[in-house]
Amino acid sequence: MNKPRLAAGGLRRYDGPVLTIDTERFLQDFEDLARLGATPAGGVHRPALSEADLQARAWFRDRAEAAGLKVHQDGAGNLSARLPCARPGAKTLLAGSHLDSVPGGGRFDGALGVVCALEALRTVKDSGLELPIHLEAISFTDEEGTWLGLLGSRAFAGTLRPEDLQAVPGGLEALDEALARIGTDYEALLAARRDPAAYAGFVEVHIEQGRRLEAAAVPVGVVEAVVGIRWHRLRFVGQAGHAGTLPLEDRRDALWGAARFVERAPALVRERFSPGVMNCGRLHVAPGAFNIVPGQVELALECRHGSEAQLDALEAELLNLAARCAQELNLDFEHEAVSRVPAAPLDTGVMSAIEAAAEALNLAHVRLLSFAGHDTQALSAVLPAGMFFVPSIEGISHSPREFTREEDLIHAANVLLGTLLRLAAQET
Amino acid sequence: MNKPRLAAGGLRRYDGPVLTIDTERFLQDFEDLARLGATPAGGVHRPALSEADLQARAWFRDRAEAAGLKVHQDGAGNLSARLPCARPGAKTLLAGSHLDSVPGGGRFDGALGVVCALEALRTVKDSGLELPIHLEAISFTDEEGTWLGLLGSRAFAGTLRPEDLQAVPGGLEALDEALARIGTDYEALLAARRDPAAYAGFVEVHIEQGRRLEAAAVPVGVVEAVVGIRWHRLRFVGQAGHAGTLPLEDRRDALWGAARFVERAPALVRERFSPGVMNCGRLHVAPGAFNIVPGQVELALECRHGSEAQLDALEAELLNLAARCAQELNLDFEHEAVSRVPAAPLDTGVMSAIEAAAEALNLAHVRLLSFAGHDTQALSAVLPAGMFFVPSIEGISHSPREFTREEDLIHAANVLLGTLLRLAAQET
Repeated sequence: MNKPRLAAGGLRRYDGPVLTIDTERFLQDFEDLARLGATPAGGVHRPALSEADLQARAWFRDRAEAAGLKVHQDGAGNLSARLPCARPGAKTLLAGSHLDSVPGGGRFDGALGVVCALEALRTVKDSGLELPIHLEAISFTDEEGTWLGLLGSRAFAGTLRPEDLQAVPGGLEALDEALARIGTDYEALLAARRDPAAYAGFVEVHIEQGRRLEAAAVPVGVVEAVVGIRWHRLRFVGQAGHAGTLPLEDRRDALWGAARFVERAPALVRERFSPGVMNCGRLHVAPGAFNIVPGQVELALECRHGSEAQLDALEAELLNLAARCAQELNLDFEHEAVSRVPAAPLDTGVMSAIEAAAEALNLAHVRLLSFAGHDTQALSAVLPAGMFFVPSIEGISHSPREFTREEDLIHAANVLLGTLLRLAAQET
Repeated sequence: MNKPRLAAGGLRRYDGPVLTIDTERFLQDFEDLARLGATPAGGVHRPALSEADLQARAWFRDRAEAAGLKVHQDGAGNLSARLPCARPGAKTLLAGSHLDSVPGGGRFDGALGVVCALEALRTVKDSGLELPIHLEAISFTDEEGTWLGLLGSRAFAGTLRPEDLQAVPGGLEALDEALARIGTDYEALLAARRDPAAYAGFVEVHIEQGRRLEAAAVPVGVVEAVVGIRWHRLRFVGQAGHAGTLPLEDRRDALWGAARFVERAPALVRERFSPGVMNCGRLHVAPGAFNIVPGQVELALECRHGSEAQLDALEAELLNLAARCAQELNLDFEHEAVSRVPAAPLDTGVMSAIEAAAEALNLAHVRLLSFAGHDTQALSAVLPAGMFFVPSIEGISHSPREFTREEDLIHAANVLLGTLLRLAAQET
């Protein structure tokens, strides 16, 4: 994390209108939404296209229409409220996040960004301001991956391919059946791409899901990049044998190789690639008995970094380390790439607008990486896209114990509003 | 392994008869037996009470009866050939091993000891010698544990309890059905204990299943003890978390603890407890996903040593090490004992008789531990029992590639015969 930048109090030039949200309306909406799919533990259970998700969608539609906004749903089920402007040939400035949750998740993840976007549009509308750009508040379908992570935002960006959908849980029939609940289907999903030329940019606000902002006591984290993620399957191959009769000095124990790698890898990443991270989250020993020396171990390796170049280096160093550990213990080593999500550097113009909006509110901000995936990442492939975080208490995420303080919710909405006004001002 | 003792050429006093086996008959029998349950890979598949095992039993009965020996089967299905003596009140001297194999095993494991014992009795009988003791060649039921390891020898020793049989594969009904194939049943199995007072001792010859004798070029390994075995389940407990948003320095990764233990434990055992051994043959990570920091790891720990006191110390040091690794990484640590087989020190009188027999044949010998379990271990609880090994090429075991050279097979039979004659001579 970079050194926090303290608020610079209007040092950046912005001569546009200064607006702030209707705090009471905003907080009430946030509370009302949290009741849909609420769990006894205090979180929400709102998997994409579940009954609770349908209720949340209906609620969003009602609240937007009540505010005089135009509601529209695309072929991917992405649900939008629009505040059009009168200027001929105007582009659209997009803001939002997602209403769906992981199973047994929290009430802040995704929901905050949607309610902030809705409130920003209402505030602009109520003010009577005539912006030179259309505003659109959006909730993307299935960010959390009940079917496929970032489903709606990838469809919007045009990066969703038929082969990505081959492995959805329950198969395509189950997906089609679920899409039918919101009046769309598989064909429409794949045809939901929007023309990027019609959009000036995208802004998302989200809870951090980490503890960096809380620890630094900084209210606004400006995301520089969403990290790239690489998955590898490592295989250490030795020789299975009788755990009694085979002396220790003669063993080619595959688990020894995997253990040496797990013992050394985190230190290498901390020393050379911080704030990049790695994880070994799965390990399988074969044959797998108390009295048999492990002949083969498969180890899951994940690494994440905000820069593709750093990710290349991190990946190469870790694979080298694994090969070296194997060699030291007279083992064979193999690996295969399993999955790869490229790092998504975000738009510097949007970052500056977020920082200016924070400073106008006298809020300190800092730049950081997003280590989790977000809809912004999908949109960044085709649009100037940016996002910012507000603090998560203890970094708890995907849990009913997920929590963000009320003052930070209000900051989230006001910074988003200020950001949209500044980006809109650039259109003139 | 102790320093090899070179043959001392009759230094030890023995004035009894000098006999050697009928090599051709012995090797032919060994070949014939290896055809029963033979596999294309060159081994045998003869799990206890399988069709192939029944064929091997019938073959043993035929060969023993053809030699004029009396065949008897006890309630545990242990199959014996007896050569009685005329002396009133004489005890019995027992020798043997087992005819069953692991699935897809080799032709030497167990079979060698049975054929050697049969050949020893035939040689004595053919010589017309009148020994002051009965001789009995025995094949114990299910040494390899198709149902329960050392089933027959434990029944013989009276250490088989009903609760040991609760978990046999397929349940008691399946076991009873299998026992019916050889005309016995569950009740008879549990009542098969023999009176130890009737027995003077037991001798077993077996392939080493390790490479120590081959490496030292010593043809006879005299077993000092069958190692004790302790199984523990170790549990490292940290905190599961998001493998992206949780910085490396804040993680309590349970796999890091297990890996540190596996990295350090073998060196500790080699440095302080050689020739004792340890193994971690199973490891389970929870929750177990590429992108979730491991919250809990269960690790299987086995340790083996020939001395109970050393095993106590080894076990304590390893559990201490595991607790220390956990503490260093801010993890919790728990463990539970899963299973325990006591170390079985063997009879020094039998060891001396084996060594004297080897020396009379000008064969070098060495004392060592048996790291695998054997029927001798069960009998040692109630009888003066001893065993010796002959070399296994490359230590390969429980495999069709298991191999022992012909000259070593012949040594096995002659040393067993010499040992029995020396032990018999002590009865006068």
